Amino acid sequence: MAPSIPTEQYAQVFEKNGGPLEYKKIPVAKPASDEVLVNIKFSGVCHTDLHALNGDWPLATKLPLVGGHEGAGVVVAKGDLAQDIEIGDHVGVKWINGSCLACSFCQQSDEPLCAHALLSGYTVDGSFQQYAIAKAAHVARIDKSIPLDAIAPVLCAGITVYKGLKESGARPGETVAIVGAGGGLGSLACQYAKAMGLQVIGIDTGEDKKKMVTGELGAETFIDFAKSTNLVKDVQAATADGLGPHAVLLVAVNEKPFQQAAEYVRPRGTVICIGLPAGAYLRAPVFESVIKMVTIKGSYVGNRKDTAEALEFYRRGLIKAPFKVVGLSELPMVYEKMRAGAIAGRYVLDTSK
Amino acid sequence: MAPSIPTEQYAQVFEKNGGPLEYKKIPVAKPASDEVLVNIKFSGVCHTDLHALNGDWPLATKLPLVGGHEGAGVVVAKGDLAQDIEIGDHVGVKWINGSCLACSFCQQSDEPLCAHALLSGYTVDGSFQQYAIAKAAHVARIDKSIPLDAIAPVLCAGITVYKGLKESGARPGETVAIVGAGGGLGSLACQYAKAMGLQVIGIDTGEDKKKMVTGELGAETFIDFAKSTNLVKDVQAATADGLGPHAVLLVAVNEKPFQQAAEYVRPRGTVICIGLPAGAYLRAPVFESVIKMVTIKGSYVGNRKDTAEALEFYRRGLIKAPFKVVGLSELPMVYEKMRAGAIAGRYVLDTSK
Amino acid sequence: MAPSIPTEQYAQVFEKNGGPLEYKKIPVAKPASDEVLVNIKFSGVCHTDLHALNGDWPLATKLPLVGGHEGAGVVVAKGDLAQDIEIGDHVGVKWINGSCLACSFCQQSDEPLCAHALLSGYTVDGSFQQYAIAKAAHVARIDKSIPLDAIAPVLCAGITVYKGLKESGARPGETVAIVGAGGGLGSLACQYAKAMGLQVIGIDTGEDKKKMVTGELGAETFIDFAKSTNLVKDVQAATADGLGPHAVLLVAVNEKPFQQAAEYVRPRGTVICIGLPAGAYLRAPVFESVIKMVTIKGSYVGNRKDTAEALEFYRRGLIKAPFKVVGLSELPMVYEKMRAGAIAGRYVLDTSK
Amino acid sequence: MAPSIPTEQYAQVFEKNGGPLEYKKIPVAKPASDEVLVNIKFSGVCHTDLHALNGDWPLATKLPLVGGHEGAGVVVAKGDLAQDIEIGDHVGVKWINGSCLACSFCQQSDEPLCAHALLSGYTVDGSFQQYAIAKAAHVARIDKSIPLDAIAPVLCAGITVYKGLKESGARPGETVAIVGAGGGLGSLACQYAKAMGLQVIGIDTGEDKKKMVTGELGAETFIDFAKSTNLVKDVQAATADGLGPHAVLLVAVNEKPFQQAAEYVRPRGTVICIGLPAGAYLRAPVFESVIKMVTIKGSYVGNRKDTAEALEFYRRGLIKAPFKVVGLSELPMVYEKMRAGAIAGRYVLDTSK
Ligand SMILES: [Zn+2]
Ligand SMILES: [Zn+2]
Ligand SMILES: [Zn+2]
Ligand SMILES: [Zn+2]
Ligand SMILES: [Zn+2]
Ligand SMILES: [Zn+2]
Ligand SMILES: [Zn+2]
Ligand SMILES: [Zn+2]
Repeated sequence: MAPSIPTEQYAQVFEKNGGPLEYKKIPVAKPASDEVLVNIKFSGVCHTDLHALNGDWPLATKLPLVGGHEGAGVVVAKGDLAQDIEIGDHVGVKWINGSCLACSFCQQSDEPLCAHALLSGYTVDGSFQQYAIAKAAHVARIDKSIPLDAIAPVLCAGITVYKGLKESGARPGETVAIVGAGGGLGSLACQYAKAMGLQVIGIDTGEDKKKMVTGELGAETFIDFAKSTNLVKDVQAATADGLGPHAVLLVAVNEKPFQQAAEYVRPRGTVICIGLPAGAYLRAPVFESVIKMVTIKGSYVGNRKDTAEALEFYRRGLIKAPFKVVGLSELPMVYEKMRAGAIAGRYVLDTSK
Repeated sequence: MAPSIPTEQYAQVFEKNGGPLEYKKIPVAKPASDEVLVNIKFSGVCHTDLHALNGDWPLATKLPLVGGHEGAGVVVAKGDLAQDIEIGDHVGVKWINGSCLACSFCQQSDEPLCAHALLSGYTVDGSFQQYAIAKAAHVARIDKSIPLDAIAPVLCAGITVYKGLKESGARPGETVAIVGAGGGLGSLACQYAKAMGLQVIGIDTGEDKKKMVTGELGAETFIDFAKSTNLVKDVQAATADGLGPHAVLLVAVNEKPFQQAAEYVRPRGTVICIGLPAGAYLRAPVFESVIKMVTIKGSYVGNRKDTAEALEFYRRGLIKAPFKVVGLSELPMVYEKMRAGAIAGRYVLDTSK
Repeated sequence: MAPSIPTEQYAQVFEKNGGPLEYKKIPVAKPASDEVLVNIKFSGVCHTDLHALNGDWPLATKLPLVGGHEGAGVVVAKGDLAQDIEIGDHVGVKWINGSCLACSFCQQSDEPLCAHALLSGYTVDGSFQQYAIAKAAHVARIDKSIPLDAIAPVLCAGITVYKGLKESGARPGETVAIVGAGGGLGSLACQYAKAMGLQVIGIDTGEDKKKMVTGELGAETFIDFAKSTNLVKDVQAATADGLGPHAVLLVAVNEKPFQQAAEYVRPRGTVICIGLPAGAYLRAPVFESVIKMVTIKGSYVGNRKDTAEALEFYRRGLIKAPFKVVGLSELPMVYEKMRAGAIAGRYVLDTSK
Repeated sequence: MAPSIPTEQYAQVFEKNGGPLEYKKIPVAKPASDEVLVNIKFSGVCHTDLHALNGDWPLATKLPLVGGHEGAGVVVAKGDLAQDIEIGDHVGVKWINGSCLACSFCQQSDEPLCAHALLSGYTVDGSFQQYAIAKAAHVARIDKSIPLDAIAPVLCAGITVYKGLKESGARPGETVAIVGAGGGLGSLACQYAKAMGLQVIGIDTGEDKKKMVTGELGAETFIDFAKSTNLVKDVQAATADGLGPHAVLLVAVNEKPFQQAAEYVRPRGTVICIGLPAGAYLRAPVFESVIKMVTIKGSYVGNRKDTAEALEFYRRGLIKAPFKVVGLSELPMVYEKMRAGAIAGRYVLDTSK
């Protein structure tokens, strides 16, 4: 029996960058032949959504726009080319909504680099609505054993940090330093790193974070950057041979930590830069970078394979991501807290409220 | 019949950084059990030697010092552990004079990263003398079909650019942009790139360099950075699909070209930074580097395997490196020209003069 | 102006494995939304086509079937999802006609491993007709500077050997032995290997082949397996250090050459097995394979990226593939020669005759 | 204070292949400049030792010979070139006793492939004595927190399986099937695989092994090959998507499991062959191997880096290896049990008894 699909639905929409947001009824779209229509049950909210609303980045958003790129829901309709997906399947609508699947980047599994990539909640309408459209080849497949509210934020942050860890080239047994270990991305990064057999040096500040990072998140060491008088030395000392971590994951990039990372990373090591602070610059001393053969690498979001792999770690019970559910109608309140820097953990929107 | 080894020899020595250089007789050393004594026939001169004399870098030199790290000569004595090398073999004394062969870097073939590495003409006496000591496991093996004067500069510049090209990860058929294509390192890089099946975009300035780069050096394209009004666009347009080169080799690093490289390199591409300008910084915009997944990587000198491979390309006749021979006694004149920026091609010192 | 498309066309069809082939008029199909209709101008003929006709392999063919998987032609119609391709574009219809683009193999760019892959001239109608259907995302893009008759056989053999060389992991400067160097696949393999900066040891038999392999095909060495009394020793002696080639490409697999390959390949080397002789087995001694850490790897056809790369080498003028043009109606004659083992070079069918 | 070194010691010696073994006093050797003298405290016993005694392999042993290659002890003397190791350090004397550190294999960290490699207990005297000689650059560094009796067998079996898992290319989250999971090598392989973030399918037979493999060894699944009526199907069904394991580790190679491995491994997967059964052959169907792009790879013992990494996993408490201590004098009894196939777990010899 096919699900009954309404013609109208609730959504959070804005007409121009800067807002305001309107919570209102809009029409439900119909999927094209290579698309699916997803009944979004829950959607995470992340900083990117706020950047999109603000128009912070050097890339224009669609307008008017329904934001959101961490939507978890159920397939309720599909085009005729969507042959490997069924009505009723659980799927995720993520940042990469679709790509051309034909360009040289798509050909090499780098769909996030596709010049024709569609971005959920940015260049196409996203998950802050009850029924969202996404390309069938791109929606994340979610095992039915996974709760849809819990997985929503993993669809963005989880995949992104997993991808960053893969890109770092760090092998099981090696050590990765995670800068911002106690934050939203960082706490997921610690868990993925551990599940990947890596040893973790968590870098952040505060006793609560220390307890969490070395406790439930499984890091071997915690370094409080606010207390350290010599961060470079302390990070290197946290590795068994004193040579520093094999990789550094910068999940809260600003120029200062970046430069330190290039200093404390092990020779031949890799500094992975994740996250998109407006206007920031990477900066590293040439002499030291060359004689240490340091690699500095930007890592964007995961491709479809990364997505499947990241979700599989979650399904196996290796990743926990605390979250708090509020109604879709309460999105402005979430943004308010985000602006105030007052968010601990992730907010997940229940689209039925 | 063992060669007769004198007890004294000519060398260029300095007592303190800044000089002066003295051309005088000094004793000939005896090899330890894991060393060889090499009768240096010819030695190249490179900027590193001048940096060593000046004391430009944040790493102290041995004092007094015999400089030079591009020595080509003949083994005249060896320690008892040097079992795979014979008296009469042709060998090269290169930048990495020796390393511990036991630390974690040496274990992974990264001898240049060994904390105990000995640096010819920097932390140990080098090739600006007639008889130099080097670790047997580290001297470059030179096929006897190769002229010793011609190979001398290749022992430094050739290996370095070959290593950089390897580190770039560019595969045959892909495109590499070489910044400084018409210079000493650049002209070798063009030839190695071509021999490795890469397509080359040479970036430099002047009609003479254009002719050389696209002529004998084999580059597909030349871009004159002084004439280009939009270098980023021009470099990208020089690739068949307009997406930019897969790799960029910065052989004449300064901050300006570096930032441009991060802009014109293809998404997923790699910018390799070679050379050690005092005090320079790598700098790249975070946003673009992340969404393009750009890699920036320092590449130092080659290891022993890289050395053997680079010399093999030369032996096969695929690499030409123009040079001019003068006597060892004329080293001050060479430095003078170097300081004045008036050197075209490499100077090679004949230690018999 | 859209091209005029007939409703009927000539094709070579068979109703059941074993034949007979019928040269007759059949309807022209219409492309689905993700497909293109290609006016095939020329099609190569390869052993696979004969295997398909015979029903030699443990995989059933579509019936009735139009064979052929080396078709070069012009796009004359396309579905609405085919946005990156234009009417008039030159394209190739190759073995992999289409794939799901969504399974885990397609996600990692291994479309040839897709369980839903469509095989031209095997599970779907192929290029032995004037108008063929293919998935838009999968047709090879052919630069208009390339003659369509000349490129046809490259679409199969060229891509296959290029892929095999990539899979071998051999790096520029290293040595690859090509077993069957003078044959159809082998002669392309020699040229691709050379263009990729590899040194080639051609293994085959006869003075004509020797002349061709070391002449126009660019191999460093030729070894006549019929004259060699110790092939293992001779192949190893053909490398500068006597340790054997870094890779071996078996383009004419049978059990004997395979076992020898595992013996003469360099320790840590790779033996790539291409081609699909019915019922053959790989066989290698465990002891030697383990202590030499030999890798034996099957390589199938290229993915879309490999295809684009292989064609780009051709476009650059680095690959020559001799061929002989006959009419599509003459296909039975070509098969006759193939059965008799009397083909030198490739036959290409002109679909207008 | 330097340790007092006796001039004579107890050892197990044989004069010719086939034996007999003699437990007797022999002189203590003196280390050359690049060697250390190790006071062996404990030595594991493995099948290789029995093969050496028997002369089973196509490689001659030194004669007379002191066997043993799993020795754990304390450095009591060293040559003057052994600068990174101190008297009193805990070290392991393993299969690769030394290598030239200069050939092309040593240059690329493949010391086990060195043509001049010295093999403990095979081409040089090994660890079945109280004082053994080994090359300083090659002895395994053992952290003092690790008990010397427990680590002895890990020096061979642990490193070997860890190397095999690395060579497989399986990434964290992927699945590896271990054939012989309940045996000596297999039980270590299960634990290393788990520590490396892999999912394990243990293949072996019997209820006891099932309990151990899925219990303390951490495998996700156990398949009893004696009970399975379709091993290929059962192994593939044990992976989440039914496509089979990404890698297979054959720790108890014989021809039957090998061929099955090539069948049930995932397309693009790797079959790693460890262990050296005399006279066995790898065998795989060409057609399936090619269209599935299967890799079959021999993996020998680890290099120095692998050794350090494998021991670090042990130090972190992630690996357990049950063992039973008997006196060095009781070696003949151990061989007796080995011949009878009656060994569960490893025997470790206490050289003081
Ligand atoms: Zn694309
Ligand atoms: Zn997000
Ligand atoms: Zn070292
Ligand atoms: Zn130099
Ligand atoms: Zn597929
Ligand atoms: Zn073909
Ligand atoms: Zn060696
Ligand atoms: Zn053993």
